[in-house]
Formats: sequence, structure tokens, C-alpha cells
Amino acid sequence: MDPQSLAQSLTPSKVHAAHTLIKPYIHRTPLLTNKTLNGIASTPQTPDALKGTPYEGQTPANPTIRFFFKCENLQRIGAFKARGAFHALLRLIEERGNHAQALALASTTLNIPSYIVMPSISTTSKIEGTKAYATKVVFSGSTSTEREAVVAEVQSQTGAILVPPYDDFNIICGQGTTGLEIEEQYLDLLAQNPQLSAHGSSGSGLDAVITPIGGGGLNAGVATFFSDKKTKVFGAEPSFEGADDCRRGLEAGERVTSVKSLTIGDGLRTPVGLLNWEVISDKKKVEGVFAVTEEQIKAAMRLVLERMKVVVEPSAVVGLAVCLFNEEFRRIVEKEGGEEGWDIGIVFSGGNTTVEAIGKLFS
Amino acid sequence: MDPQSLAQSLTPSKVHAAHTLIKPYIHRTPLLTNKTLNGIASTPQTPDALKGTPYEGQTPANPTIRFFFKCENLQRIGAFKARGAFHALLRLIEERGNHAQALALASTTLNIPSYIVMPSISTTSKIEGTKAYATKVVFSGSTSTEREAVVAEVQSQTGAILVPPYDDFNIICGQGTTGLEIEEQYLDLLAQNPQLSAHGSSGSGLDAVITPIGGGGLNAGVATFFSDKKTKVFGAEPSFEGADDCRRGLEAGERVTSVKSLTIGDGLRTPVGLLNWEVISDKKKVEGVFAVTEEQIKAAMRLVLERMKVVVEPSAVVGLAVCLFNEEFRRIVEKEGGEEGWDIGIVFSGGNTTVEAIGKLFS
Repeated sequence: MDPQSLAQSLTPSKVHAAHTLIKPYIHRTPLLTNKTLNGIASTPQTPDALKGTPYEGQTPANPTIRFFFKCENLQRIGAFKARGAFHALLRLIEERGNHAQALALASTTLNIPSYIVMPSISTTSKIEGTKAYATKVVFSGSTSTEREAVVAEVQSQTGAILVPPYDDFNIICGQGTTGLEIEEQYLDLLAQNPQLSAHGSSGSGLDAVITPIGGGGLNAGVATFFSDKKTKVFGAEPSFEGADDCRRGLEAGERVTSVKSLTIGDGLRTPVGLLNWEVISDKKKVEGVFAVTEEQIKAAMRLVLERMKVVVEPSAVVGLAVCLFNEEFRRIVEKEGGEEGWDIGIVFSGGNTTVEAIGKLFS
Repeated sequence: MDPQSLAQSLTPSKVHAAHTLIKPYIHRTPLLTNKTLNGIASTPQTPDALKGTPYEGQTPANPTIRFFFKCENLQRIGAFKARGAFHALLRLIEERGNHAQALALASTTLNIPSYIVMPSISTTSKIEGTKAYATKVVFSGSTSTEREAVVAEVQSQTGAILVPPYDDFNIICGQGTTGLEIEEQYLDLLAQNPQLSAHGSSGSGLDAVITPIGGGGLNAGVATFFSDKKTKVFGAEPSFEGADDCRRGLEAGERVTSVKSLTIGDGLRTPVGLLNWEVISDKKKVEGVFAVTEEQIKAAMRLVLERMKVVVEPSAVVGLAVCLFNEEFRRIVEKEGGEEGWDIGIVFSGGNTTVEAIGKLFS
């Protein structure tokens, strides 16, 4: 099926079905709130912070923001990716019937290697984590082109079935379950603590959800889930060395297919995939994509570690960084949210880092 | 009242009363479990790890341990100390009646300074955090003798009422509410997820709880709460430069009154207070106190940050370090817990650290 038609069949009900399937295998990660961060986000930036931006000399925006942090850094393997992976494999088993199920059982029981292709410059913690689960890790260059070449080689040598990392129907539906849980947990939380929102407990859902965009599976999945709801979905990317390929693609009206960035958001160095692009470039599904600098990512990460006491990797906080530091986004919230402000769901996508990496970032 | 009689009147019901009083002002912090850490704790240490200890050459202990982490690093101001402080002030208001209440209201409203005396070598994050709440911070030397001298001076100059940091009846009852919540949350958790314990959901309480010991208020309070229950209470200290004053005092049969240690567990550099000593040296209340090295504290801290994705300060993990690395303690668990093992409550006492401090620790 062509990407356009495939994108059309990505519906909220597919995400619900994915959730039913993967629920026994994943954690329902907590949805946290934090008054300190709400306070910082709801305070105008200093005029100094706007220097060198298009907003220099203008009055800084004064939005009202209440955060709801979905902690996928506490998901199994420390990232939302467990959702897509379980869904892809469970669907494989369903589609291929008992034969595949028997194979899966056999491969686990008999320790038949699963081949994982990953860039050799991946962070130590991700390589170590992967080695702990996979029996064979194959390294590739850092771009998606280089990675796909190694994947093709491994497949031709082994006959292995490819489970793609992000640009895949089942992966997208799996990642979309993050959105489903955010909505459920937000409504539950408000029913119990109506004071957490200026909207009261009436509960018509979050005003917005923002997720990081690397390959785009998480954002496309979450956007699929919210596509029939009033909640607006946004994406966030690092701007360093052009890692904001999705934002730039949207601006130019054409997908950027190659990225070579060494942003500290190491999970966001890939260009957005073809199918994900179909979803994300659909204005009815994704409202906009915003970029932040390396320093802004670090400032957001410091706040999360020091104030929320939660360990996140740099990639995980780009959405928060947009809310705190991207003046264009903050103006939208000020204008559309008005005095009541917005309740914004932030997806902390992962927490795979090391104490050494934290030390290096902030030394 | 003399310390012995005062210690006698520290009863579980006093802790219950304290909890009722402070409940509206504190967070009910989560109680977390973690399979990875249970697995590590339930695996014998390597023979190498025992080199240079009295257990060198012997078979490493093989205890079965399931952890229940009480996250007081997520408490208001990032540490359990909010409990004691709220309790002490609320009791002051109760005892002194409307006059004190009016004074308290007035001092908050009018921003009348509260004088906080703290060692000048305190960590940056603690100084900054304190300055954010107090209007006047006075610095002292690093030992408790030096600190008390400055306190006396401030009192004589200002007529301020002293709220002592740890060696105080009301502070102890306040900190003890940590134990009350651990028990409640453990029983709730087991009722919902009996598989979390080998003891099933029958729920006769935790086998043990272990807390850090600095001034000893937290440990004495928790021990007070559990004094009429089967749960055993243990204490943990850093051994570096004699910071294990409580453990050494118990060994010698006499309280150590002065400590000068620069252990990375900066919350644990004080000698145990007189009233706390009365509680902790009572074998019916505290079963034993164990010490760990700086490297063991760092190893435990790394595990909590990297595996649990939770930010803790070094002081917070000495209890976990004892469970993982103190062979004497591990032998007790192996012997007394047998095959079923022990459910151990660990108090993460605080999370006030910075990304720079984490970087420096692990560089």
C-alpha cells in the first residue's frame, strides 16, 4: 500500500487495539505534575533570552502552562520504544499464526540471536542495554542510509525478518498507545484533583500534547490517537546541525531525507520516516513542529533532574524545552490559551543515560 | 525531662498523631519497587568484592531481597525533613495557642525573616534551596559544635525560637511518619499485587526497614513507629573519616559526640543526637547499624540513577548500599530470611543535588 493510503488507515481505533494487545507486556508509566516547572513555564522569558532571535526587543510572551509529564523514561528498557516493539512482534505472531508463535517461543527458549543493527556512536548505556537483551548487536555508520545498508546485509545473510525502528504501521500504533494512556491518566487525575487544572474536572481532555520527533513514530502514533479529539499535537526537535529536519521539511513543503547531526538529543538524529511524514505533515493531525538549541535542551534537562528528581536523556526533554524557551510556541499558548491557559502533556521519551554522560554534559 | 524518660514517651501513637497533623502539608511520596535492583541484591557478591574485609576467602552470602523504596527525595523541599519541620511548627502553634498562630501568620505575611543556620560548606543546591524559602541564612563551621555556637548567637541577638534539626521530640515524631506511610503503602501495594512478595498478600508488614543515620531523627522516628510491630529497623552510615559515629558508639557502648567527616553523604556528617541515641541504642527499637564505603555509596547511587531513573543524593542511598554490599548485613538476611527472603523498606531520604555535583562525583 502507498504511504498516503497507509496513513489514512492509521486511525484511533488501531491505537486502541494496539493497547489491548501490548498492555500485559508494558508498564503503565506515571503521569507527573510539578508546580515549580509550571511556575517557570508561566513566567515570561527575560528580554536577554530573546536576543538574537526574531523576537528580540519585543515583549516576551506570558503564557499560562500546566504540565502533565508522561514518564516513558520509566517504561521497560527505559523508553517508549518498548510499546512499538511489542506491538510489532505481537502482530507478527498474530499474522503469521502458530508458526511464527512457535518460532518466537523457540527463539526465546533456545536463545536464537535477534540481530540488532545500531550506530557505532550510540551512547554506551544504549549499547550495553541492547547487548543485555539481544544476543547479537551489529554496528553501522551513524546515518539512516548507512544503517539501512547494514540491515539489508544482515537480512540477506540470515533471512531474518525486519522489524523497522519507526517507519512502520504497527510500530506507529504501538507508540500511539502513549497518547491513549496520557489521556486516560489526565482525566483520572483531574477527576481526583480538579485543582490541578484551571479547566476544572469537567474533563474535555488536554489542550495539547508535545513529543520529540526523531524518526517520527512516537509523534505520528500520538497524533493518530488524538486525530478525532480536540487535543492539539505538536512535535519538538533539536535545531543543532539541522536535526530539525521535520520542521524544515514542513517549511519547505518537502520531506528532508538525510540528516547528519550530532545533537546531544542522540535519539533524534534520524530524519523523519516516509509514513510518519504523511501523518505529521497532515495539518489536521499535527499542529506544528518547533526546534530548540542544545543549551535549551540542557537547561530543560537540568530542571527535570534537579527539580523533578527524575532522570531523563537529552532527547526526552525537547518538548519541555519548546514550552519553556521557544518564543513562537509560547506566543501560541498565550494567544490561544488566554487567561485559563493550557494543560500540556509532555512525553519524556526515555531515560537511557549514565552518570558519566550527565557529568560530561554539564562539566 | 531527661532523655531516657523522653525516649520512653516516644510511642507509635505519637507518630500517628504527628501524621494527622502534617498530612495536609506534606506529599505522600511514592513507594517504588524495582526488579533489576532486587535481582542484584539477591545475587552473591563476587569473592573479589570481599577482599580486604573480614569475609575475605569465605563464600559470599546469598540473601533473597525485595526492595520497597520510599521516595522522600520527592518530598517537598526534596527531603524527608519537611515532615519534622512542619510537625515542630504546627506543635508550636498548638502549644502556644493563638498568639503563636498569629505570629506565624504574621511572619509569613509580613516576610519576617526566619533565621537558618547552616554549615558554609553545604552543597550549593541546599544553600540555594534554603535561600529560596528562608529570608535569612547564617553560615557556620561544619561541625555540630560550631553550628550550635552560631545558633546561640543568633538566638541571643534576635530572641528567635529554636527549632532544632533532629534531636527533638516533635521532629522525631514528624520524621517517624515516613515509617507509617511505608507500612500503609506496602500493605496496599501487596493487596493489589501479591506477586511482589514471597509472603503473599496476607500482609503482616515488612521484614525490615533501613534508613540513613546523620543526626538520627529519621531513624529514631521510624524506629518509634515500628517499635510495637514485627518489622525490624536498621540504620546505615558512611564509614568515611568516622562518619559511622552511631555504629562505633554502639560498639563501644557510648555515644560518639563529635564527628569531622567530609563523606560524600553530606547529610550524614553530624553525630547522632542525645535523644536519638536513647532510641537507636535501644535494642528493642533498632536492630543494628551498618556502615558502607564511599565507593559503595557511589555504586548504589549509580544504580538508582541509571536503573530506576530516580535522582537521589549520596546520603539517600546508604541503606541500599548496606543491602547490596555490607556482607555482615547480607548474612543476617540470608540466615533470618531463608528461602522466602526479606521485604525491605529503603528510605531514599533526599534528592538535593545538582547535575554538576553528579558529574563531579563520577568524573
